[in-house]
Amino acid sequence: MTEVAVGIDIGGTFTKYGIVDKEGNCLADGSISTTEKKDINDFLEYLKSAIDDVTSKITEPIYIKGIGLGAPNGNFYRGTIEYAPNLSWEGIVPFVELFKKYYDLPMFLTNDANAAAIGEMVYGGAKHMDNFIIITLGTGLGSGLVVNGELVYGHDGFAGELGHLTIMRNGRMCPTGRRGSLETYASASGIKRTIFELLADSIEDSEFRDVTFNQLTAKMISEAAKKGDNIALEAFELTGKYLGEALADTVAHTSPEAIFLFGGWANAGELIFEPTKRHMELNLLKIFKNKVKILPSGLTETNAAVMGASALVWKELNN
Amino acid sequence: MTEVAVGIDIGGTFTKYGIVDKEGNCLADGSISTTEKKDINDFLEYLKSAIDDVTSKITEPIYIKGIGLGAPNGNFYRGTIEYAPNLSWEGIVPFVELFKKYYDLPMFLTNDANAAAIGEMVYGGAKHMDNFIIITLGTGLGSGLVVNGELVYGHDGFAGELGHLTIMRNGRMCPTGRRGSLETYASASGIKRTIFELLADSIEDSEFRDVTFNQLTAKMISEAAKKGDNIALEAFELTGKYLGEALADTVAHTSPEAIFLFGGWANAGELIFEPTKRHMELNLLKIFKNKVKILPSGLTETNAAVMGASALVWKELNN
Repeated sequence: MTEVAVGIDIGGTFTKYGIVDKEGNCLADGSISTTEKKDINDFLEYLKSAIDDVTSKITEPIYIKGIGLGAPNGNFYRGTIEYAPNLSWEGIVPFVELFKKYYDLPMFLTNDANAAAIGEMVYGGAKHMDNFIIITLGTGLGSGLVVNGELVYGHDGFAGELGHLTIMRNGRMCPTGRRGSLETYASASGIKRTIFELLADSIEDSEFRDVTFNQLTAKMISEAAKKGDNIALEAFELTGKYLGEALADTVAHTSPEAIFLFGGWANAGELIFEPTKRHMELNLLKIFKNKVKILPSGLTETNAAVMGASALVWKELNN
Repeated sequence: MTEVAVGIDIGGTFTKYGIVDKEGNCLADGSISTTEKKDINDFLEYLKSAIDDVTSKITEPIYIKGIGLGAPNGNFYRGTIEYAPNLSWEGIVPFVELFKKYYDLPMFLTNDANAAAIGEMVYGGAKHMDNFIIITLGTGLGSGLVVNGELVYGHDGFAGELGHLTIMRNGRMCPTGRRGSLETYASASGIKRTIFELLADSIEDSEFRDVTFNQLTAKMISEAAKKGDNIALEAFELTGKYLGEALADTVAHTSPEAIFLFGGWANAGELIFEPTKRHMELNLLKIFKNKVKILPSGLTETNAAVMGASALVWKELNN
């Protein structure tokens, strides 16, 4: 009998799920729309039947040990999703309480970046690390902090919001109503904004002089940089500067062994790793210099979020 | 037989020590010069005899369980004091290894702010808190972070250097060679610099127009503010702004239940607590607002550093 955990990653558009064993092998997976069922109970019923459907197709005998969930604004202590701006369920959703009607199993929920950190710890590059940080680079910037081998949830379950460090007083507007948040600079949407700032500031030619803001994607910026577009190259340099400077402050907090950059956008590789590392080092206090590794995630990207959610089960049942 | 711990606080000028029981009663204490004996071994011999001297005068029977040490740049993992700028011993001093020649007892060393955090946890206002932060306000700014009931030492033993967060790019010069560190703004020396910036910028009258930089003390600034000196009042407002803004970023890291302000300078009371709290709240992400307490230390100031160092023994022997 193979012991497995169900990992579920709730995103703004899709909810993905997988049946994962202790070694991180995904025996089956699938996804449903997060938005099709407006009512949370209809959604949960739909999710339950989708999971049962893939589970039934696994031929080897399995024993489900628990369910791990990653969700934006997920609160580990309460099992709730609270005021998630990109989900249609409003206010505080008691997700675990509601989903327990369908499964009489240990169930753990946290935010998606925390789930990624636990995935890194259980299956990925942080297996032997007690102190590390994961930065998820997507449309926004999420983070998960691990200290003394434990995830940092903080007093209220919401610790690790590095995307909302203020890196520029009176800086760029953020959907939260604040200004100058790290994620308005260092994220897929942030680098787009940097491109447009550079197009305005500089007189350099660029392929982006014929592209609208809504047309522009982070992938286009990586491709242009690789072809030598100076505006795109400068945007990566600045993004690495913003991120590296912020990470130097983060190191002064928890002094991690490594910082993992995770998510599709981290695939820009040296374009983002090199300036991030360089600017972090420039800003570190002497006692921290040349000690902190900046690493790519050890989780393969396909299903990484689902893997992280499933890892939460192994981590918590072990505690 | 009363179980006691020896607490030792190594400062730039004096080294203070005390014999403290589990409830935080100090049965005896004393201090010696840190600078009189230049050689580390001479100093340790001197310290040993001074401690033996006060211990021998305690009339009740005692049993010494261990020795706790707080020192600038103290490294918990290695028991070393490393490159402490205000101590005359150069390089890396293997303090615990050397001092063990004099005492065959469990011995723990950490930096002074971490010792203060442990004192707060064992004897002070954080007895029932698993997640809190202590900020020590003195000539500089030190900090100790507690997460999941454990002190954050980080990968290398040096975590919790919030005095070296960069709050202003190209800001004030710091003895570390960096610029814009929090402690160049929010500390006794920082507020002096703010006074001089305001004297230059403003045309407001102030009693400090007749005071030199070297004459000015943090205490004079508190007293002037209490008498209504507008430059002094504005300096406290700005200091609270710098500190509060930085603490908002710290909350985004570890989401503590409370932040304690500790040290002589925190005695300025509402002059510093009120603007710090207000500016922190202004800058917090919505999910953190009105959750984090800013509190005075629960340790009385006399011997607080010695108490913290002694608490390290109870904390570590309990682990």
